[in-house]
Amino acid sequence: MSISFAIEASNDSARLGRLTTPHGVVETPVFMPVGTVASVKGVSQDLLEELGVQILLGNTYHLYLRPGVEQIRQLGGLHRFMAWPRAILTDSGGFQVFSLNQLRQVSEEGVKFRSHLDGSTHFFTPESAMGAQIGLGADIIMAFDECTEHPADRERVRQSMELTLRWAERSKKYVESHKNEVPWTDPVGRGVPVRAGGHGLAGSEQTQALFGIVQGGMDLALRRESAERTIEIGFPGYAIGGLSVGEPRALTREVVESTLQHLPADKPRYLMGVGTPDEIVEYAGLGVDMMDCVLPTRAARHGLLFTSEGRVSIKQARYAGDQEPLDSKCGCRVCRRYSRAYLRHLYAANEVLAQVLNTVHNLSFYLDTMRAVRHSIALGSVVQVSPGERPQAKP
Amino acid sequence: MSISFAIEASNDSARLGRLTTPHGVVETPVFMPVGTVASVKGVSQDLLEELGVQILLGNTYHLYLRPGVEQIRQLGGLHRFMAWPRAILTDSGGFQVFSLNQLRQVSEEGVKFRSHLDGSTHFFTPESAMGAQIGLGADIIMAFDECTEHPADRERVRQSMELTLRWAERSKKYVESHKNEVPWTDPVGRGVPVRAGGHGLAGSEQTQALFGIVQGGMDLALRRESAERTIEIGFPGYAIGGLSVGEPRALTREVVESTLQHLPADKPRYLMGVGTPDEIVEYAGLGVDMMDCVLPTRAARHGLLFTSEGRVSIKQARYAGDQEPLDSKCGCRVCRRYSRAYLRHLYAANEVLAQVLNTVHNLSFYLDTMRAVRHSIALGSVVQVSPGERPQAKP
Repeated sequence: MSISFAIEASNDSARLGRLTTPHGVVETPVFMPVGTVASVKGVSQDLLEELGVQILLGNTYHLYLRPGVEQIRQLGGLHRFMAWPRAILTDSGGFQVFSLNQLRQVSEEGVKFRSHLDGSTHFFTPESAMGAQIGLGADIIMAFDECTEHPADRERVRQSMELTLRWAERSKKYVESHKNEVPWTDPVGRGVPVRAGGHGLAGSEQTQALFGIVQGGMDLALRRESAERTIEIGFPGYAIGGLSVGEPRALTREVVESTLQHLPADKPRYLMGVGTPDEIVEYAGLGVDMMDCVLPTRAARHGLLFTSEGRVSIKQARYAGDQEPLDSKCGCRVCRRYSRAYLRHLYAANEVLAQVLNTVHNLSFYLDTMRAVRHSIALGSVVQVSPGERPQAKP
Repeated sequence: MSISFAIEASNDSARLGRLTTPHGVVETPVFMPVGTVASVKGVSQDLLEELGVQILLGNTYHLYLRPGVEQIRQLGGLHRFMAWPRAILTDSGGFQVFSLNQLRQVSEEGVKFRSHLDGSTHFFTPESAMGAQIGLGADIIMAFDECTEHPADRERVRQSMELTLRWAERSKKYVESHKNEVPWTDPVGRGVPVRAGGHGLAGSEQTQALFGIVQGGMDLALRRESAERTIEIGFPGYAIGGLSVGEPRALTREVVESTLQHLPADKPRYLMGVGTPDEIVEYAGLGVDMMDCVLPTRAARHGLLFTSEGRVSIKQARYAGDQEPLDSKCGCRVCRRYSRAYLRHLYAANEVLAQVLNTVHNLSFYLDTMRAVRHSIALGSVVQVSPGERPQAKP
């Protein structure tokens, strides 16, 4: 068994779910913070737990380059390596290969690319990307796909979609024949590594869940075809990829809404790389169960903070004497303790604590937002976005 | 009243003390972490409290330049600005003016210097440095002194010492006539500012404590004269300045040991800018009550970690696969949760969390070291330094 998914309530298209993974339960809709190289930049795992993070995202591309998959595998997998006992999802590396490499060469076999760190040449295939993800040992892993560029003509989008479908089959085949190689063990302690599928220990029958990825560019018919044929291959969950690649937001929404109709209702649906606070509310309302985005963490590092009153650029001089908390409606550690004046000072003085506190707040805001969304669905109320980007339950 | 100091036990020269400040009790001997610009780099105030920090050091020079004394004064002083309810000590700015400015111009009146940030010209006098420290509102503030360079001939050292003595008188005179201007208020909440010496509120009779600083270079006779004449001026505590300026460690120890003999036993004694873990143990054994140093925090940023087994340079490749905790005898959050392999990875990947975790551990090590020293004194045992830099009580 890999994961199980139960829908506990629904309200129009929105669903309240319970995703059970080998490393704990995830309440959906969920926002997954991005921990690129086995760290959510600046935030310790203790604090992530306190914030209520139930599932983290790791980037296979970055971890493959540094510290290397074999290193992490030998240390018992990503959970144990980074001392994170809760669920983890890794992407396939495909998106970073496409977004960080101008010189990539795509062939039927896979993608040749250069490391953004040292320019060294590497080759990812569906098989090697699955091997990497098995070595990392996340609970949920992603099929190797081609993220189609935007704009692209219909023929190009179709060919790319077809390639992704062939790669999905190869990904599934590889994982099925290597699923017992996951290096799971006690994630925090320093016990003896235990292979999954193995030695009679509790949980040792558990395996990773491989999700398929729907592509098809901005073409609704191709999206439908991609969804149907990915479902034919058969996965325990489905992702919508290839969005947030520069297209207008109305188009993103149209593609998401349309594609969701072709995905099975009883499986988790993951919209990759989205989005702003109001977008995650909007897409949860459409029936998306999982989302991830670097926005809350990256924006924090640039002093851009999300609050119930809207966005605050804390670097501005207007906050230098502002004794109020960043967000008086927020109960996070940062808003409970520090003033805007102090946060502004830390940012202006280039203090590392600025990044730490800003990231804690933004993540808290995102997680609270998703909590409010789940509450709204449970109450049977409409999920709405307030002007200040905080969702409010309307009975 | 400013501070009170009670010696609760002593063992040879070492003393176990209780320093009561307007913002709480400090158990001595104490190590004071350095929070240069109102932040211990990378570590939130919550964590500092959890580590047991009872008193922080702030640098007047840095705070004067950014965000500015007037800004902090208007916001209720440093405690409230940085949301730190416990004790704070500020230096006078003199040391940074000397160490960060090659082009400083010293006159009887004060020191003209250039900002290391933007090259702008500034002038510190004993009066303006006291005014700054009153505006910042630390519990303990320091007289404005000249840190004599090393090496220096005897005549130069004497002239510098005499200048420091005249500045000490001017510092004291200024503080006595402006002591009711301290902007103290509830440090964490956002209440109404209350002036000290004022409105009948609990604690409002409390004032800052101004410490005198003994100079005199490496000349024991001049150190004695400096001590005696500083005591004549009269302060509630005395610091030994002008050490750790490049002289050999045996000489530092000789000057400290000699100078301590001339300081009153019933007042706190503060050795400025010292030192390594074994040095803080050594000087506590000689009878020093307070110390501060950037070493634990600065070394952490360079991956140099202090452990019970000695120093660990976590950047080394030998730790890449090391599943052990950094220090198996340390109970800090970092050693309880993470492996050396993970800490090495964070450092190698230039992740901000490396600085955060390394700093938490090093501070924890220093504070635990001082806890062990206090325990040793209470037990009447000899304070000794183990080969691994952790003091051990020897009955």
